[in-house]
Amino acid sequence: MQARTNRRWLLVSRPEAMFAETDFKWTESPVPALKEGEFLVRNLWLSCDPTQMGWMKRDTYVPKIQLGEVMRALGVGQVIESRHPDYHVGEVVTGLLGWQDYSVSDGRGLGSVEKVPAGVPLSLVLSLFGITGMSAYFGTVEIGRVQPGETFVVSSAAGAVGSVAGQIAKIRGARVIGIAGGPIKCAWVRKEAGFDDAIDYKSEKVGPRLSELCPKGIDVYFDNVGGEILDEVLARINLHARIVLCGSISNYAAREFRPLSNYPMLTTRRGRMEGFIILDYANRYSEAIPVLAGWLAEGKLKVKEDVAMGLRNAPKTLARLFTGENFGKQLLKIADPPLPVSS
Amino acid sequence: MQARTNRRWLLVSRPEAMFAETDFKWTESPVPALKEGEFLVRNLWLSCDPTQMGWMKRDTYVPKIQLGEVMRALGVGQVIESRHPDYHVGEVVTGLLGWQDYSVSDGRGLGSVEKVPAGVPLSLVLSLFGITGMSAYFGTVEIGRVQPGETFVVSSAAGAVGSVAGQIAKIRGARVIGIAGGPIKCAWVRKEAGFDDAIDYKSEKVGPRLSELCPKGIDVYFDNVGGEILDEVLARINLHARIVLCGSISNYAAREFRPLSNYPMLTTRRGRMEGFIILDYANRYSEAIPVLAGWLAEGKLKVKEDVAMGLRNAPKTLARLFTGENFGKQLLKIADPPLPVSS
Repeated sequence: MQARTNRRWLLVSRPEAMFAETDFKWTESPVPALKEGEFLVRNLWLSCDPTQMGWMKRDTYVPKIQLGEVMRALGVGQVIESRHPDYHVGEVVTGLLGWQDYSVSDGRGLGSVEKVPAGVPLSLVLSLFGITGMSAYFGTVEIGRVQPGETFVVSSAAGAVGSVAGQIAKIRGARVIGIAGGPIKCAWVRKEAGFDDAIDYKSEKVGPRLSELCPKGIDVYFDNVGGEILDEVLARINLHARIVLCGSISNYAAREFRPLSNYPMLTTRRGRMEGFIILDYANRYSEAIPVLAGWLAEGKLKVKEDVAMGLRNAPKTLARLFTGENFGKQLLKIADPPLPVSS
Repeated sequence: MQARTNRRWLLVSRPEAMFAETDFKWTESPVPALKEGEFLVRNLWLSCDPTQMGWMKRDTYVPKIQLGEVMRALGVGQVIESRHPDYHVGEVVTGLLGWQDYSVSDGRGLGSVEKVPAGVPLSLVLSLFGITGMSAYFGTVEIGRVQPGETFVVSSAAGAVGSVAGQIAKIRGARVIGIAGGPIKCAWVRKEAGFDDAIDYKSEKVGPRLSELCPKGIDVYFDNVGGEILDEVLARINLHARIVLCGSISNYAAREFRPLSNYPMLTTRRGRMEGFIILDYANRYSEAIPVLAGWLAEGKLKVKEDVAMGLRNAPKTLARLFTGENFGKQLLKIADPPLPVSS
């Protein structure tokens, strides 16, 4: 049998601020033959996540990507060959598959994968049921602890996390205000996602608009952006407010983090600002997924996906997150399942 | 009977940054005759607290002091006349007595007072058993939730709150590092208060010294100062660290708060930064006081008080907090009890 060619994007230099396509190198090489205990995955969908910027730059909650390694990314793929007793040809798996056509795994460490139950749409594995949907759920419910009647504000409200977080808060009875960039996203946030209102940070002054739309102050802020918007929210928090630090995308592409001025409001208002990493909740995903799937089936939850095509476009597609071009969960589809999907 | 003369310091202008003595006006006027339901208190001790700066400047967790009103301050005094059925001559009380020789109270609102049980040293009512000791206790135990074996760092470690907070953390089995200004305070923190070590922020670089003295990272930071030291701590927090925002004295005398750069560490390390106002715990002081009194009696807790004398010196004495001149709880003694103390 002729060896398959694996096309890969390797990380070859470490960005200081925003990355460039030249930080990656395109390579093509044969897929090595499997050893005993390994299996081969054809990668189908790749997830684009802000946290990938951190993986490139420095050790964070996981070690940074080594230079010369394939670019790390979550993905969904199908097992197409196996010399591993627990992984069978045809099964669909998700894990850190990377920017490449094929991944060889022994099922352990960073190469470990989870099996995807049959019948789950593959893109949902990375959006609503992936780390972004899980972040929205546990951030809103466990860290934000939003209560009926409270005012909930979320940034990147048309993004993968923010759009779901706001809808969960709405389902739980809160008044929900989203912050998003541009009239199209804001209209979607209001009409499709059903938020009470939206602020267009590109054309409106966020601070005064927050004052108008949150006349009773802000109880929970689900922060996906950091920076200036976080400061504007802090100026308007209520007693015992909760600030959920999920991400700070405004800082990821910067050389230095923009400092925060209004943190002493946490003392005056007895507020709590708490960060979390969704991997800490991995053993509780199975608790969240049926809840989210139920709301999706009932039509209470809208999922927005922004799908690009082709492995060649991986750097450009990831970059969309940092320019705010993405609308919903940014995904890259690189292949259809080559075999019938089995479970 | 000749009317008593009440000497008072009125707030007459609102400081923008640090206050000046000219923000206050010294007046002398007769004490008015009591109405039915009022009682007269001879003020004995006044408490100097960083939060008084906030009271002068703006509405915070309490309304700001009105211009022309007596300067607000906690104090201890003795009831010397009474037309109130519940307050009797000779009893010692504590409350917002203000910068004046005499307070007339009807026992309600901001004029409400608590009775002090007989036998309690009067200064301790304002130090260990006052808002500073209570802040140390609830901040360390409830917000910081310090555990045995953890590394606990506290700023203003020779101050009223910090010295007690660090000792409580030590009693609870933590490794405790204090940050204080100057060799004398640092020696006291190490030898008298029994901390594991101290950093002199006036002569040492706080960041590198924290790295040396906290080789396993920082689990709890009890923050009394804000600003640059808070940023240095955030850079070194452990997973699930807790930052207790008790005060930020470095900011109180400033026109603007110094912004914070390292807050995204709260996400990376899943940290929690939480402010509190000790008045929220008022109904639980009775739980803390016997615990602290017990440790004091057993010699496990050292209380340091810094006592100035004379009402004339109130502005100068309060100013010591903001220059770091005070060593322990800053108090102003203005009179001895004129009558035998009864309970």
